[in-house]
Amino acid sequence: MAVAVQTFADRLAAEVERKRSQLVVGLDPRVDLLPVELRGDVARFCCGLVDAVAPHAVAVKPQLAFFEMLGAPGIAAFQEVCAYAHRAGMLVIADGKRGDIGSTARAYADAYLEGDLPRADALTVNAYLGRESVEPFIAAARRTGGGLFVLVKTSNAGGDVQDLQLLDGRPLWHHVASLVAEWGEELVGEVGLSSVGAVVGATHPRAVAEARRLMPQAILLLPGVGAQGAAVGDLVRAFQSGPASALVTASRSIDYAFRETGGDYREAAGAEAARLKREIWAASGW
Amino acid sequence: MAVAVQTFADRLAAEVERKRSQLVVGLDPRVDLLPVELRGDVARFCCGLVDAVAPHAVAVKPQLAFFEMLGAPGIAAFQEVCAYAHRAGMLVIADGKRGDIGSTARAYADAYLEGDLPRADALTVNAYLGRESVEPFIAAARRTGGGLFVLVKTSNAGGDVQDLQLLDGRPLWHHVASLVAEWGEELVGEVGLSSVGAVVGATHPRAVAEARRLMPQAILLLPGVGAQGAAVGDLVRAFQSGPASALVTASRSIDYAFRETGGDYREAAGAEAARLKREIWAASGW
Repeated sequence: MAVAVQTFADRLAAEVERKRSQLVVGLDPRVDLLPVELRGDVARFCCGLVDAVAPHAVAVKPQLAFFEMLGAPGIAAFQEVCAYAHRAGMLVIADGKRGDIGSTARAYADAYLEGDLPRADALTVNAYLGRESVEPFIAAARRTGGGLFVLVKTSNAGGDVQDLQLLDGRPLWHHVASLVAEWGEELVGEVGLSSVGAVVGATHPRAVAEARRLMPQAILLLPGVGAQGAAVGDLVRAFQSGPASALVTASRSIDYAFRETGGDYREAAGAEAARLKREIWAASGW
Repeated sequence: MAVAVQTFADRLAAEVERKRSQLVVGLDPRVDLLPVELRGDVARFCCGLVDAVAPHAVAVKPQLAFFEMLGAPGIAAFQEVCAYAHRAGMLVIADGKRGDIGSTARAYADAYLEGDLPRADALTVNAYLGRESVEPFIAAARRTGGGLFVLVKTSNAGGDVQDLQLLDGRPLWHHVASLVAEWGEELVGEVGLSSVGAVVGATHPRAVAEARRLMPQAILLLPGVGAQGAAVGDLVRAFQSGPASALVTASRSIDYAFRETGGDYREAAGAEAARLKREIWAASGW
């Protein structure tokens, strides 16, 4: 009989309680914004950020695009950062927004959740290709104790697709939310949260509240705070399913805090992460 | 004054006429299926396929997932294959199905269409995040003479999202098709085709015909022939906008033809590509 693997949701919930934090720090290494003394060394920059934010954040969220634009060395840096974050006691959410037909989705699941390489604990996933494209990620998550976050209502102004009104009057993203709730039922952990989560832009506070209602067991990954302008105080409803039922991500406002404050980039990032962590925890009502 | 760059659509159309071919060979390097003598050398396998199919196909379509699952060496192999295919006179369509908010989409455009690394000529794109997520690819395509293929109606059974009925009675994918037609208007080349194309599964022949009507200037990229079972003879309508107005992709049935026929994998791939090229050209009516 197979040994039961602890679910991603349970692992995350334990970290949220331990650190009293629902903060996820996005790693967006833009070579032109790095401190000059790093000479464009993306891995060193990101590992420095990991050191700085590890006491304050439960996970890092490397944005794969910024690693991919550097080619093979960028992917090597991504893997180095995954391994480093794990050693620092942080979870890793790879932000790749992947989605493809079944056999190819299995390859993506292998690349980011299940292979022999240093890998992430969870991956963001695009469900435009439907259930068949998401199932390989769910299967991999079940085997490895990993997770996925399906794009539901994103933080940009992308309403020309997601807000399309369906025949029954609901916007498209409500339907995707109902699919996420259904897909997640088979991956609910002991804390009552599912490892099939959802990305919902913090820039749409009303949508966040609706998302909570439509997906009561999903962990909501909420980007848009910081550089994109969303307010933490508007997000309290997201946390109604428990302290770990929502995660707030901030990227540029932490990664590049030194550009506002001056001084060492790690100190600036750590201070901003500590501040934001406290603000989120207070707003969450837990 | 900037020198006008030849559009992707025009470059492609010239190759279609020159080779009398609308075949695109998908490169899906699955390490466990490679010929044993290559010892898992994915780059060598793919370059061998390029040599074999270059007389018969206008482009190769590397499936990024299979390169990504190999980590940094996989990405190095992808770049090697891009450069090799260009030297062999082939276009490269990177099948990555990327899509993200504006600033991140710009990084993906840089990674695959515009950066200093060996890059592709076109990229497959997922438009669930709306116009804002597609525009950076269009802008990069305009500058570089590149192209994009937006996922409209995919070859899998992913109808649980794409076939959702909108308030006006149309399926969701019809709306995405109308967006593609609109976005493509600014990138129409001299042959009357746009460099903003669309992915439409050859497995849905009626949808292919409807897609042609909804997107008269788009180049349709039609996967699903071969291993997925679609019939070339059902695709004639796709070519109504010109010889280069549709491309048929086949991957496993060419890459792994040797597993059916025996013998050298390149000979088997070349023979199958030559056969399929002729079948498509005949079916296209040109």
